[in-house]
Amino acid sequence: MKTLLPYVSTPDDLRALPAELLPELAGEIRGFLIDKVSARGGHLGSNLGIVELTIALHRVFRSPDDAIVFDTGHQAYVHKILTGRRAAFDSLRCRGGLSGYPSREESAHDHLDSSHASTALAYADGMAKARRLAGDETRAVVAVVGDGALTGGVAWEALNNLGAARQRPVIVVLNDNGRSYAPTHGGWADHLARLRGGGGATVFESLGLRYLGPVDGHDIPALERAMRAARELRAPVVVHCVTRKGRGYGPAEQDLDEHLHAIPVTDPESGKPVSPGGSTWTQVFSQQLCELGARRRDLVAITAAMPGPTGLASFGRRFPERMFDVGIAEQQALASAAGMAMSGLHPVVAIYATFLNRAFGQVLMDVALHRLPVTLVLDRAGITGPDGPSHHGMWDLAALAAVPGMRVTAPRDAVRLCELLEEAVEHDGPTALRFPKAAVEAAIPPVGSAGGVDVLSSTGQDVCLVAVGPMAGPCLSAAALLSAAGAGVTVVDPRWVIPVSAGLREVVRDSRLVVTVEDGIAASGAGALLRQVCRPGQHVLNLGLPCAFIAQGTRSELLTEAGLTGQGVAHAVRQELNRWPL
Amino acid sequence: MKTLLPYVSTPDDLRALPAELLPELAGEIRGFLIDKVSARGGHLGSNLGIVELTIALHRVFRSPDDAIVFDTGHQAYVHKILTGRRAAFDSLRCRGGLSGYPSREESAHDHLDSSHASTALAYADGMAKARRLAGDETRAVVAVVGDGALTGGVAWEALNNLGAARQRPVIVVLNDNGRSYAPTHGGWADHLARLRGGGGATVFESLGLRYLGPVDGHDIPALERAMRAARELRAPVVVHCVTRKGRGYGPAEQDLDEHLHAIPVTDPESGKPVSPGGSTWTQVFSQQLCELGARRRDLVAITAAMPGPTGLASFGRRFPERMFDVGIAEQQALASAAGMAMSGLHPVVAIYATFLNRAFGQVLMDVALHRLPVTLVLDRAGITGPDGPSHHGMWDLAALAAVPGMRVTAPRDAVRLCELLEEAVEHDGPTALRFPKAAVEAAIPPVGSAGGVDVLSSTGQDVCLVAVGPMAGPCLSAAALLSAAGAGVTVVDPRWVIPVSAGLREVVRDSRLVVTVEDGIAASGAGALLRQVCRPGQHVLNLGLPCAFIAQGTRSELLTEAGLTGQGVAHAVRQELNRWPL
Repeated sequence: MKTLLPYVSTPDDLRALPAELLPELAGEIRGFLIDKVSARGGHLGSNLGIVELTIALHRVFRSPDDAIVFDTGHQAYVHKILTGRRAAFDSLRCRGGLSGYPSREESAHDHLDSSHASTALAYADGMAKARRLAGDETRAVVAVVGDGALTGGVAWEALNNLGAARQRPVIVVLNDNGRSYAPTHGGWADHLARLRGGGGATVFESLGLRYLGPVDGHDIPALERAMRAARELRAPVVVHCVTRKGRGYGPAEQDLDEHLHAIPVTDPESGKPVSPGGSTWTQVFSQQLCELGARRRDLVAITAAMPGPTGLASFGRRFPERMFDVGIAEQQALASAAGMAMSGLHPVVAIYATFLNRAFGQVLMDVALHRLPVTLVLDRAGITGPDGPSHHGMWDLAALAAVPGMRVTAPRDAVRLCELLEEAVEHDGPTALRFPKAAVEAAIPPVGSAGGVDVLSSTGQDVCLVAVGPMAGPCLSAAALLSAAGAGVTVVDPRWVIPVSAGLREVVRDSRLVVTVEDGIAASGAGALLRQVCRPGQHVLNLGLPCAFIAQGTRSELLTEAGLTGQGVAHAVRQELNRWPL
Repeated sequence: MKTLLPYVSTPDDLRALPAELLPELAGEIRGFLIDKVSARGGHLGSNLGIVELTIALHRVFRSPDDAIVFDTGHQAYVHKILTGRRAAFDSLRCRGGLSGYPSREESAHDHLDSSHASTALAYADGMAKARRLAGDETRAVVAVVGDGALTGGVAWEALNNLGAARQRPVIVVLNDNGRSYAPTHGGWADHLARLRGGGGATVFESLGLRYLGPVDGHDIPALERAMRAARELRAPVVVHCVTRKGRGYGPAEQDLDEHLHAIPVTDPESGKPVSPGGSTWTQVFSQQLCELGARRRDLVAITAAMPGPTGLASFGRRFPERMFDVGIAEQQALASAAGMAMSGLHPVVAIYATFLNRAFGQVLMDVALHRLPVTLVLDRAGITGPDGPSHHGMWDLAALAAVPGMRVTAPRDAVRLCELLEEAVEHDGPTALRFPKAAVEAAIPPVGSAGGVDVLSSTGQDVCLVAVGPMAGPCLSAAALLSAAGAGVTVVDPRWVIPVSAGLREVVRDSRLVVTVEDGIAASGAGALLRQVCRPGQHVLNLGLPCAFIAQGTRSELLTEAGLTGQGVAHAVRQELNRWPL
């Protein structure tokens, strides 16, 4: 029975509540989170851990005048509940519904649409600099950041700047649960562990910030006292709050791997997924990497704090000495991979496509410039779904197209994933292999092959559909629709999509209309590269995603909206043929 | 008189030299550096500061079996002298000559072709992991890194990993001269200053590394003792060496701004440039920003440790409270700019085009996702010249083409630079303005205008040359050559090159051959975007740089080689017309 929560819809309501009722409120919030996140899927563990901390934040600081900036935005569910958005949780992460991250559109209490880790301190530094310039000395800037996010370089860069500015009093609330997805990694984790034990000088103080703590992150009066003290310091300060991820929910506390970090639709009693679904691309990759690892002793795997979600955990269990978790540190993942490759190893860096953007400089200058044998495995490529604009992995093809010597492959099915991963790790230079967050088709067999290009179907040469990876299915459907209407259509899968192969150029040479289909940015991806090398006058149509930030929704909804279905591709081709007959 | 240097060509020679002769050798090396770098231009101050340190490194460690990895590769000149490359200094930074950075092609003593800051620790971490896996416990891995480079996030990410691995004994040699180009910034600089004074616990020890120092970085016996002690520790360790940038050369010691960090061809007596040359793009930008700053109190400037080279120093002198140096920390530059823009300011982030790659994630997720008014000013865009492959700013157009909502401009002359910078800071969203390291043309006046596109010359509609920024000059020359041979040629400057404007589409619509010319990657830049929106069957030729790492040379040599001269463009157009007559 929720007897308090219905009456707490704003920070004012919260501040009006007698302090002795707050533990009860926290319990009700936990129950609410478990119900709603189980029903829709989403981030659970971190939000269960931050309930009391968020309550204390909103009692001590006056949002939105005091800016509370959440790093790694998935820890903002409780903040949403307390700022008028409780009722919207039934639409959590749905198309048109409540975002799983802060959202400036949703509320004046949200200052950014953030989701990636480690940047909130830099935002806060910028906001504090602006307030200082405006002579605004009263409103606080508070950044809430996890211990795991502090392994990311940009967080350190920001701490260096915060510590130098004693007149800009940013308050860093460190939500230390000892983890990101995985346990926090490195010397930093040991340092925090010593601080949790009350020990010694802190890195923060070395950099010029003050330090308050450690505070029990589930003790609301203690949290409030510490935050008030921090505010009164009027100096850059870290409030070290120790929390437990998954707190107060048995299945989350007992999940020692990830504490139910993020869950699909789940039975709230058992904490088990309702429908496990078929095999995913990630699972097939995970298994194939282990098999390759058994054959190749020089194969090593690198993750930036996500051994579970990237599928590397099983490699790590089987070959623990060859598995490296570098923390939330994509730049270090790539640059240390370069160092390993220089020393005779073949590193496989498994990373979400959207997080590769954080290491673009390292891909170029550390890996590609040295022509090193490093394989990037880009999970969550293309449309990702309910995580919204910051999580779609739609920039990888555009970015990698400009990296000299980089070879990119996009498998269309589980069989090709296994084959192409093997080809990738056998190549003596940089490669990338991309696949989406989705169930994987077991096999889409070729009907023929030409110059390394798989032919998937053919009724003629009028139209050639070039399918990038998982777009093979929609292309085959589109070809069937178009062929039924009398067009001669061939569907091909180039297997390696960047750079454009001589085989692909030859295959498309005589087609009257070449249509490329990819779940990346149409104007800047693999199709745009092919267009460059088609003969002058040849008619080319590049289908794919618009160069725009794409809102949340299911993968299927968003692919349909982008026209990346059989019907959509067929429609686009028909439209083009109507405008410009062959 | 150099009496020792001729006999020291290898580390073996160096180790055979009696210790009491080493100060004399150091003096001869300094004289040699001053002569050679003055004659060819290059990095002087940092190399003068690292003479004794490099001598000690090569006496204590056995390169190349012990790997000595130089961060920010421009500090490796002394290392080159001591590893057999003294004679090649007459070709320093010339086409086909000695690289200004480590180079694997040149020597087995160079482990990477590095030049960017802050990544060497990550390389070293990777190399040490590989050696550990191979059971190679004897060969040391040494990373030489400056204090300034440690403000970069990837260095912190690597320290976190190094500190966690007591069994991987990487030796970090900290070359602390208190500076990058500019004095080292932030709480970190204060921390190092305390350590130089012998004070207290260190951040390194907090992260799990050992700490030895401070050591006088010009006292060779002390340096050798510290390095031997570090090696014997068999644990990750920092050797803190305190050096003076520009040491031993009056003009460099007296240049308090940059200590002759990098110099053009210079008179070695006075330390003054031999030919100052005309105005540069950087100078025009610098002046115009000050003028805009005088009118707009919301305009702020951000540099990542390069106030001088980016032209921001004068803005900083005039508006010190609105100038922010964040250290070598490109991610923080962009993310803090986002925070400022959210709070009502308009930040101008002045950064070398090649370093923007290090913050691509922040451009996307922090600036563009929030549609924030941040202006990137990309200096050293396109072909940069003697700094070689890692410094050509040739990825910006390709990368920014894929950033939703980003507007990019490339001025063709000083007048347009001033106009377009003003337009950029008036735009309520993200913009980028790019220009090369070169002398600037004062004015290339338009002969007409259509839909926001400047028409620079016109003899007919057969061929339309679309010039991106400084390619206007070559395009006009090419048009004159082609027109003289009877072709009708129009040259246009779209001013804003990304996204493709409706005006530009209209202007090129009736041309029989559209030729885009840019000093970026031809296949992935502004021209490739225009090709996308030309009508099917329209003949388009994209000229620009190949997708390849381009070696060092003068800008003029490299542009000629890439065909980006009047002659080159005319030749390419004639060739295309021969293959595919209009």
